[in-house]
Amino acid sequence: MITRAHLEALDRADPLAPFRALFTLPDGVVYLDGNSLGALPRATPARVAEVVAREWGEGLIRSWNDAGWIEAPARIGAKIGRLIGAPAGTVTVADSTSVNLFKLLGAALDQRPDRRVILSERSNFPTDLYIAEGLAALLGRGHTLRLVDAGEIPAAIGADTAVVMLTHVNYHTGAMFDMAAITRAAHAAGALMLWDLAHSAGAVPVDLAAADADLAVGCGYKFLNGGPGAPAFLYVAERLQQEARFPLTGWLGHAAPFAFEHSYRPAPGIARAVVGTPPMISVAALEVGVDIALQAPMDGVREKSLQQTRIFAELVAQECPGHGLRLASPSDPARRGSQVCFAHEHAYPIMQALIARGVIGDFRAPDVLRFGITPLYLGYAELWDAVQTLRAVLAGNEWQQPQFNERRKVT
Amino acid sequence: MITRAHLEALDRADPLAPFRALFTLPDGVVYLDGNSLGALPRATPARVAEVVAREWGEGLIRSWNDAGWIEAPARIGAKIGRLIGAPAGTVTVADSTSVNLFKLLGAALDQRPDRRVILSERSNFPTDLYIAEGLAALLGRGHTLRLVDAGEIPAAIGADTAVVMLTHVNYHTGAMFDMAAITRAAHAAGALMLWDLAHSAGAVPVDLAAADADLAVGCGYKFLNGGPGAPAFLYVAERLQQEARFPLTGWLGHAAPFAFEHSYRPAPGIARAVVGTPPMISVAALEVGVDIALQAPMDGVREKSLQQTRIFAELVAQECPGHGLRLASPSDPARRGSQVCFAHEHAYPIMQALIARGVIGDFRAPDVLRFGITPLYLGYAELWDAVQTLRAVLAGNEWQQPQFNERRKVT
Repeated sequence: MITRAHLEALDRADPLAPFRALFTLPDGVVYLDGNSLGALPRATPARVAEVVAREWGEGLIRSWNDAGWIEAPARIGAKIGRLIGAPAGTVTVADSTSVNLFKLLGAALDQRPDRRVILSERSNFPTDLYIAEGLAALLGRGHTLRLVDAGEIPAAIGADTAVVMLTHVNYHTGAMFDMAAITRAAHAAGALMLWDLAHSAGAVPVDLAAADADLAVGCGYKFLNGGPGAPAFLYVAERLQQEARFPLTGWLGHAAPFAFEHSYRPAPGIARAVVGTPPMISVAALEVGVDIALQAPMDGVREKSLQQTRIFAELVAQECPGHGLRLASPSDPARRGSQVCFAHEHAYPIMQALIARGVIGDFRAPDVLRFGITPLYLGYAELWDAVQTLRAVLAGNEWQQPQFNERRKVT
Repeated sequence: MITRAHLEALDRADPLAPFRALFTLPDGVVYLDGNSLGALPRATPARVAEVVAREWGEGLIRSWNDAGWIEAPARIGAKIGRLIGAPAGTVTVADSTSVNLFKLLGAALDQRPDRRVILSERSNFPTDLYIAEGLAALLGRGHTLRLVDAGEIPAAIGADTAVVMLTHVNYHTGAMFDMAAITRAAHAAGALMLWDLAHSAGAVPVDLAAADADLAVGCGYKFLNGGPGAPAFLYVAERLQQEARFPLTGWLGHAAPFAFEHSYRPAPGIARAVVGTPPMISVAALEVGVDIALQAPMDGVREKSLQQTRIFAELVAQECPGHGLRLASPSDPARRGSQVCFAHEHAYPIMQALIARGVIGDFRAPDVLRFGITPLYLGYAELWDAVQTLRAVLAGNEWQQPQFNERRKVT
């Protein structure tokens, strides 16, 4: 039997507790949606103000050199690399996750010209699937996106597989792949391996080098706390960089951008993956979030995350029995990322009622209540409060009104 | 003979003079590089702070709906549309200019499957050429990028031309195409017309609808004063929207992004051109700049720009004779955009010396001194001061040291 007192004791003993003071969170809110949009670091407003007023306003165009703007994608990329086991020079900040997927899939298919299959998981995040579909249609050379269930991935990798594209932690269920094992299976079949780290970077230990991954993309605005729509990142293993041909050949990826040559010559290394001018104000906000993640010991973050996901699931079972909630995440904590999901036929209105009472998770169609666990700013006792609110909502049947609008951003 | 007193009188009579107070510019600077990075609007710091502290920090994920983030690309796109003669629903904010060029070129080639030529100007901005090269290589279907001199464009449009891709105002010389005439020539040959408005939006009158243009892209961080690396925009004529297939098929361009369907269904209209989540802090800064541009009468902006470019060129001729400066912009003010360029064999060190003395223009390889004219915040007397500084630099030969580094952002 878990009690609030038990959770308060865990908070007092929590070695990560001081990180909470590095974030600003509104009063009266239990924030369980940091896997959709991370919280605001306390240092971000001042850093953003400095970029706007001093670097842009005073420095003007000179800040591309004097304030280090031009080096920012590589500099922040190297920092993110330290969070995901990627050596210096293999990660850069650029564009959105979707656009980066397109670049890396394009490069992967170019590297495997005799193979026609992009293999992925049926319940992968939709943009990964859409981007792959769009690229295949654009190429018009018979590429297909083959979708199978997660457990069938290793067996489905074949001699026709050009690239295996998977999201390490599933957005919908939180289920986590064994990165090293799947990468080995891809390589054994001669395929390239592309990981989407949207729900991994800053959330779970990732070691791209140890897993021998070829390619990866990831998101700046979830567990990296980089701000709404923060620029994304991408990784290309060093062994692939010189031969990698990205389909988006923009001027900032040129070997000599300011020579204004008439023909494209890719920059050496990861720099060729940058396309256009990055949105510097948003880039600056991202760096603040990444710097905080670098201060936190990833093993400690994972340990607290495992404990919090376990406790949250147990508390829901203990406090909310008989309401038709079904755990939609793997029951083994080690097989899930930093979130817990429950299926319910009225998931959408239940989540709306929770949000109205200050417990902010999100809804994922068709029937999932998704709760993100962010150990840097989430306390144990907050889990109790969130579950009590869930219990009250379920008991009160206060959730049968709102209509789901699929064009609106859904929380 | 132009005198400073004459220019001071023009400042006193300038109907646009009040706009200067809407911008923050550092003391001791004459800023002639607003065509590379526009100045900081005075309202931007507070707006950005609001987005960061209140919308992100307090509103968290709820701000996608409650603060209008999800509608921002279309909302700001519609505002930009009013600056470039584009009807509501034809413009959206998205990605970078380079990425948008890729989308629109991909859609254009898809619309003209039997034609294999992308026609452009030899001295177009390099990213336009690089993106076209990269797309042609990716498709592998024999597309070629055909480059001719500006004057040869109309005659070069042929039955094999899929799309004519031109930058309305040349980044290097400021030379401006006749948008309506070139578009007519493209259409007469059955080709599509794609305009890059990077140096046009907010700077010169543009009427895409009157010119019957098919496609356009443009930049947020030059004359729109949207901030460093501000998100870009794109335009698709309404008649092409339903059939347009963009090669970048991201989840935010889906008809129902939050239904998380497994297969891509493009959103109706211009919304399908959005790919991933936009960088909202940078998007918010862009909107402030666009709102200012909307307050200014474009005819008045153009009139002042024409007068300022003419005066600047005449002043240089009057004050700096015998130093080997050669006008590199069209001599007819009506045929240039909002900049004046001079060629000089020592253009790079001369520009460095100017910048060190607070006159900020930029250098464009191999030999061009480029001076952007931004009527909303540039006074007439400043032109006098800038030319006197140029005269002193030229007379003093203080410009023979710095080495050009083609990897650095060059001002």
